[in-house]
Amino acid sequence: MSEHESADSGDDDQELGITKSKEYETGEWYAEVVKKAGLANYAPEGMSGFIITRPRGYALWERLQGFLDAKFKDTGVQNAYFPLFIPESYLEAEKDIVEGFDPEVAWVTHGGHDELEERLAVRPTSESIITPYISQWVRSHRDLPLRVNQWCSVVRWEATETKPFFRTKEFLWQEGHTAHADRDGAWDETMTRLDQYESVYEDFLAIPVLRGQKPDHDKFPGADTTTTVEALMPDGKSVQGGTSHYLGTSFAEAFDITYSDEDEAERHAHTTSWGLSWRALGALIMTHSDDQGLVLPPTVAPTQVAIVPIWQEDTKDEVLGYAEGVAEELEEAGIRVELDDRDTRNPGFKFNEHELNGIPVRFEIGPYEVEDDEVTVVHRPDGEQSTVDREGIAETTREHLDEVYAKLYAAAEENLEGEVREADSRDEILGTIGQHGGYVKAPWCGDEECEDEIKDQIAAEIVMVPFEEDDDRHGTDHDDTCAVCDDDATRTAYFAKSY
Amino acid sequence: MSEHESADSGDDDQELGITKSKEYETGEWYAEVVKKAGLANYAPEGMSGFIITRPRGYALWERLQGFLDAKFKDTGVQNAYFPLFIPESYLEAEKDIVEGFDPEVAWVTHGGHDELEERLAVRPTSESIITPYISQWVRSHRDLPLRVNQWCSVVRWEATETKPFFRTKEFLWQEGHTAHADRDGAWDETMTRLDQYESVYEDFLAIPVLRGQKPDHDKFPGADTTTTVEALMPDGKSVQGGTSHYLGTSFAEAFDITYSDEDEAERHAHTTSWGLSWRALGALIMTHSDDQGLVLPPTVAPTQVAIVPIWQEDTKDEVLGYAEGVAEELEEAGIRVELDDRDTRNPGFKFNEHELNGIPVRFEIGPYEVEDDEVTVVHRPDGEQSTVDREGIAETTREHLDEVYAKLYAAAEENLEGEVREADSRDEILGTIGQHGGYVKAPWCGDEECEDEIKDQIAAEIVMVPFEEDDDRHGTDHDDTCAVCDDDATRTAYFAKSY
Repeated sequence: MSEHESADSGDDDQELGITKSKEYETGEWYAEVVKKAGLANYAPEGMSGFIITRPRGYALWERLQGFLDAKFKDTGVQNAYFPLFIPESYLEAEKDIVEGFDPEVAWVTHGGHDELEERLAVRPTSESIITPYISQWVRSHRDLPLRVNQWCSVVRWEATETKPFFRTKEFLWQEGHTAHADRDGAWDETMTRLDQYESVYEDFLAIPVLRGQKPDHDKFPGADTTTTVEALMPDGKSVQGGTSHYLGTSFAEAFDITYSDEDEAERHAHTTSWGLSWRALGALIMTHSDDQGLVLPPTVAPTQVAIVPIWQEDTKDEVLGYAEGVAEELEEAGIRVELDDRDTRNPGFKFNEHELNGIPVRFEIGPYEVEDDEVTVVHRPDGEQSTVDREGIAETTREHLDEVYAKLYAAAEENLEGEVREADSRDEILGTIGQHGGYVKAPWCGDEECEDEIKDQIAAEIVMVPFEEDDDRHGTDHDDTCAVCDDDATRTAYFAKSY
Repeated sequence: MSEHESADSGDDDQELGITKSKEYETGEWYAEVVKKAGLANYAPEGMSGFIITRPRGYALWERLQGFLDAKFKDTGVQNAYFPLFIPESYLEAEKDIVEGFDPEVAWVTHGGHDELEERLAVRPTSESIITPYISQWVRSHRDLPLRVNQWCSVVRWEATETKPFFRTKEFLWQEGHTAHADRDGAWDETMTRLDQYESVYEDFLAIPVLRGQKPDHDKFPGADTTTTVEALMPDGKSVQGGTSHYLGTSFAEAFDITYSDEDEAERHAHTTSWGLSWRALGALIMTHSDDQGLVLPPTVAPTQVAIVPIWQEDTKDEVLGYAEGVAEELEEAGIRVELDDRDTRNPGFKFNEHELNGIPVRFEIGPYEVEDDEVTVVHRPDGEQSTVDREGIAETTREHLDEVYAKLYAAAEENLEGEVREADSRDEILGTIGQHGGYVKAPWCGDEECEDEIKDQIAAEIVMVPFEEDDDRHGTDHDDTCAVCDDDATRTAYFAKSY
């Protein structure tokens, strides 16, 4: 194992422990977990805002990619790859895009020793280069729906402080772009992708989310509707976990995506775009980890089970042989297992290291386990320990992995449920968020100004408005008034501080 | 199927046929195959040198990635992700790198509205940003070997004509970077990766390759040895199919990668780097395809079998039901099958389309096949047709897929074998390459000037020198003289025109 481990090690022994407190110093604690669990390094001088994603961090992204990409492929999405650069004039073809991203674009001005005639944007998002090709590929209603996705990195030159996976100038993501014959098709697509993002969080990362849409003034530039899944972090802030945009016909009009329908009439297509970034990893790390280090649900963990054999010189062969047999049996059953047979480290060190690195289940195997045909099983993060039969170990392991997932999800769900509070007045919104963080549900008239009043006071904003069908304030059969201005409320708004 | 197809279609019917001849207009024929099989589009004005990789093209890259990445992971490689940009000062830390790539670098000079203090290179290769981190991660001999790889795009601002997958300003590739305690470890690594590249060609793309090393004057900037696999294209030119570099200690010295050995002595590590790009797809398309369009080995083909049901109104249910049963059986056996049940297209159109798109095996199923419990099987590219039993169809299909692979490989091998010729004099080298193309093996003294004499005359160069153990001219027990200068020959050189 040591050979395969090496790209992730290299830290000195005394660096293993987490020294910051999740509860009291969340930001510093997060940075320490990211560094000490070997997930990422900050890039050095001259590259502030960028990170180096190390193998343990990238492995999480690869597993997430595998989960989501399989869902995409099952639902008609094909992957493609478009150029990294976008000529300035393309961005300008969609004025909302250019207004939305202009202050954040990195510009290439020279190729080799020559100045370029037109400068090129490093893609901040790819609507303006993908949409013209969708326009070429769509001729008839038979070409619809058309769906392409790419896994790539994008660059947004934000000046704020770097926070690995949450806020970096370059980040990894996927961006999907689709065209449909009509609103219904495009809206269904928007919802299908939002459902899949919800599933990434709830079924894969063990994080419950809220779903809804962004207020109109906070939509993706040019979108008709921006839908979102929001996850609550332990510091009481909300993370926008993934967004799926129904773009209406605005991009089709700007880039001339038309098709001839069954009656040979030319129509504009309805388009969507949707993206999920490695911010999901930030939410993952932040939600479950603790003062011992990283905690990972077994779904996403690159290694699900670490086997630590405990031997003396005279029991070594026996213990190691037994442990190897267990490892083989798990491996054959498709469980990601690592037998930690290093003899340069003692078991206590190994326990700490595997805890730091977030391996969900540890097996301890010593002479007693061998004698009794058993295995000692320890769960991360709660340390729950039990002794199980050697026979049927693969099946038993699966049950334990499921149990660990369920524990993590239940803890996150309990946290979320306790952190959604109601408020009916401006002062109540301010007071509740100020005191507790979390989400505050309040009746809202729909005006940006009312949100601004809150934002100006405590940097909280409306992160989400439930969909009409989930919102009993939608429509006219209620008599609530806006918590801020006392006009009629038309929607329920979720206020929160946000990443 | 039509729904999943749509992102690849959109071409008008009359565009299906290939109009150029592979034999007589190889370049134009290649461009036409790439376009009409829906693999890639050229990027438009302002973006010359870039391509749009469409779903059918990207799917080939995804399959190649899957094949090679599994080999990497089985041999201790971990994936990571490093920033897209590299500060100019980093490039300058390795003077060979900066000299090698300076004329080809795309430069970012502005972030948002601000000019950057230091301009950033869009990575042309990542040694100069990865090596400093390897330096941080390596402390002791226990941290070695250390291996990281990334799948990404790189940019090289070459002014030459665009040829999709062969020559583009941005291309997809993987780059691996490793550090080892000594020369032996690093050399073994270099060879392991070269073996894996050879396997990509020979076991996955059905292309036999030659292996060896580049002449010293044509090595990767800063390398001790550059090894290569070379594939012969049907137009008689050689393609550098993948390169694996033993870097010696030059990068370790420039970026200070040292480790303490067993005796606590500080030593410089030996490093390697190795890369394979989507040029492999260019070689794939060029080697096997024909005047009917794309030809793919079943290994890389996203769809291995297309089933075309042939029915009249009164036989439709029966034929379709039977075809669906066959499709299900193949799918359950893990064969990538597509039932083409579109009723807007006739069978002849479907045959042409599947041939254009390079589906290796076609099943034709009509009332006769149903009655006799059989399936008609047609191979791409040679049209070989046979009738097989419905029973055991999955197993039979596997045999046919293997047969198609073997045919493609044999044809490419025969071509290669006929295109390696010997020459003993300058005029013979020039005459042979001028008349036949292909490789010319000749005794060589090792001097760049002798290669230049050939290069100046016919733009052929030494693409490869066999490894010492494969080269009976290495050493002193022969009395050959250099074909160009008549000094003692020390090696055999393979001259060829090159992509």
